[in-house]
Amino acid sequence: MSTPSVIHIPVVKVNANQSAREEDSIAIEEPLEIKLEYGPTDQREVRNISVTMRTPGHDAELATGFLFTEGIIKNADEIKSAKHSFIACAENKENTMLVTLEEGVLPNLQNTERNFYTTSSCGVCGKGSISAIRTVSSFAGVEDDGNMIHSIVLNQLPKILRRHQRVFDDTGGLHASALFTPVGELLLLREDVGRHNALDKLIGAAMMYNWLPLQQTILVLSGRASFELIQKAAMAGISIIAAVGAPSSLAVELANEFNITLIGFLRDERFNIYTGAHRVMIPADEAALTAPSA
Amino acid sequence: MSTPSVIHIPVVKVNANQSAREEDSIAIEEPLEIKLEYGPTDQREVRNISVTMRTPGHDAELATGFLFTEGIIKNADEIKSAKHSFIACAENKENTMLVTLEEGVLPNLQNTERNFYTTSSCGVCGKGSISAIRTVSSFAGVEDDGNMIHSIVLNQLPKILRRHQRVFDDTGGLHASALFTPVGELLLLREDVGRHNALDKLIGAAMMYNWLPLQQTILVLSGRASFELIQKAAMAGISIIAAVGAPSSLAVELANEFNITLIGFLRDERFNIYTGAHRVMIPADEAALTAPSA
Repeated sequence: MSTPSVIHIPVVKVNANQSAREEDSIAIEEPLEIKLEYGPTDQREVRNISVTMRTPGHDAELATGFLFTEGIIKNADEIKSAKHSFIACAENKENTMLVTLEEGVLPNLQNTERNFYTTSSCGVCGKGSISAIRTVSSFAGVEDDGNMIHSIVLNQLPKILRRHQRVFDDTGGLHASALFTPVGELLLLREDVGRHNALDKLIGAAMMYNWLPLQQTILVLSGRASFELIQKAAMAGISIIAAVGAPSSLAVELANEFNITLIGFLRDERFNIYTGAHRVMIPADEAALTAPSA
Repeated sequence: MSTPSVIHIPVVKVNANQSAREEDSIAIEEPLEIKLEYGPTDQREVRNISVTMRTPGHDAELATGFLFTEGIIKNADEIKSAKHSFIACAENKENTMLVTLEEGVLPNLQNTERNFYTTSSCGVCGKGSISAIRTVSSFAGVEDDGNMIHSIVLNQLPKILRRHQRVFDDTGGLHASALFTPVGELLLLREDVGRHNALDKLIGAAMMYNWLPLQQTILVLSGRASFELIQKAAMAGISIIAAVGAPSSLAVELANEFNITLIGFLRDERFNIYTGAHRVMIPADEAALTAPSA
């Protein structure tokens, strides 16, 4: 049933201007169409919501995670089923997911037409994008949850992430999102050619396990932290995000606005704290030495 | 007038569990709304086409490049003007581009509603996505253009790219797309928080300079090569693409289908050729040694 995430193809490898024919593993990228079925029993409607280019695998999590992080559905209880739906196709790929809602549940379809980037009140700007998220999020910007992480634990997370990135090891071509406990135990990891898909798969899985809001966890991103990723994490109530790569300005603004701790450049025993530094603990000696009074 | 690409913010830097307050540079991410004005003089229409999260700068190139690579407009002659359009906004950001078409030019607005990922004939699959591009591209899949690159030149390109990535050096947070001549001269480079935006800016600029189709050039991508990037390059008639990162399966399929040379993992004097190896030359001695007869 399940589609593989990797294929092997012949390539010409050139090293120091010498060539050789070898086999290489590459990450599979295929479209996934997300459809939503809803309405009363005698009047069900089916609507095309989105098409995303993704790596096959965990498609139900991707579809339900996307519907949740985009504010179209509110929780797992609204979902009756999420199944591949086959369409006559020469290749017969499992590239359509039909998410069926429980009777009586009305999806917020307004969120499929407009997006978080624009609000009527403020034209187009970062501030407007951030306000728009507040209107649809159930968890974001809640009171402080007591979540904390120790710098020594933080420094270990990229290595653990990398060790578990099975498909990345084969292909070098996948983004990962992973959830850790505050003591550094890996709870869940998802990979995808699209970084937003990896996070949607992760949040979709967490929603299915009834883990939301994800307050006592740390989200680790294998790459950069953009606005879109912080937005999705905020929707799931995540309060600590650590990215291996750089954050963008709007990612920092959003994290600040929602009281999220945002860490960037987490690698080689170093990191930068952009927002919410109160959730990061460093060993007492060094803390006393480097922050004497202010 | 022009918005900066970088801002400086205070951060807590933690190195070997010691913290210090320092300043850090981060790449700016802001929404850009693309609007299109078209129709006869007495009946102009304005339509919202897309909102993308981008790094400010080269916004006209981004907007026109996007309209071209998505198949909504055919060439630069169709464009009368591309200007920032101010909307009452608390922050007064330059976040809306209005692209005005010449009178009588009809945009292909069908391409704003559906996308390349789906065709009616074949449900949703990679093959369908590839066929869809063929229907809207002016240049892709043309006869062989004689474009070639030497492996010694190829190996230099990432270093040249990196040397010219001004904003990346500051922030570590930007993707780049660059055009080179077959002898390794840098023609054009664009950066953005979004890899698709960096390429749209590049192609938009090339279109404005009347360089399309870009047959005698090499496109270098600072990261991974996804389907979407190869699609945009194919629309511009680019026949050699070299990515510093990994390609996806559908990127390879699309490159193969359109007779594009696709190179991946171009770094440290090495690279893999996934498709179109006939356009890559390696020094004669080594070639003879490693490919004796077949």
